[in-house]
Amino acid sequence: MIKARIVVTLKNGVLDPQGKAIEGALSNLGFSGVGGVRQGKVFDVVLDGDDKAGAKERLSQMCEKLLANTVIENYSVEIA
Amino acid sequence: MIKARIVVTLKNGVLDPQGKAIEGALSNLGFSGVGGVRQGKVFDVVLDGDDKAGAKERLSQMCEKLLANTVIENYSVEIA
Repeated sequence: MIKARIVVTLKNGVLDPQGKAIEGALSNLGFSGVGGVRQGKVFDVVLDGDDKAGAKERLSQMCEKLLANTVIENYSVEIA
Repeated sequence: MIKARIVVTLKNGVLDPQGKAIEGALSNLGFSGVGGVRQGKVFDVVLDGDDKAGAKERLSQMCEKLLANTVIENYSVEIA
């Protein structure tokens, strides 16, 4: 069994209105000195088998096909 | 300037229909051997200043007050 974490974040330069809203909300709550917030997604995936190199390859394909929009998002795959 | 990453995940035992849907979609796309998917959120926060210990404390407060629903979610704070 392989546990992996995939993190999908917006590419630099892509507007993130959700992050901006969070920044405003933090400021309204009294948190000062926040220079920026960007929101992304995380997927914790459990795979059968023990082939870590193969798993990384499969997880990258999952990102390309489903989990990330590679036009505007980057992804990183981390095997635990 | 301090860069931090906050990861918010559902606690064990909390149902994750979105993760289940992703699992089904992966299976439909031909990815076999997926044992489970749980979706979470990630926040990349930039803070002013250089006090890493203080920043970690402030980021935890942000999670408690806004970023995470601590009834059903765990959070982790990581300073880059």
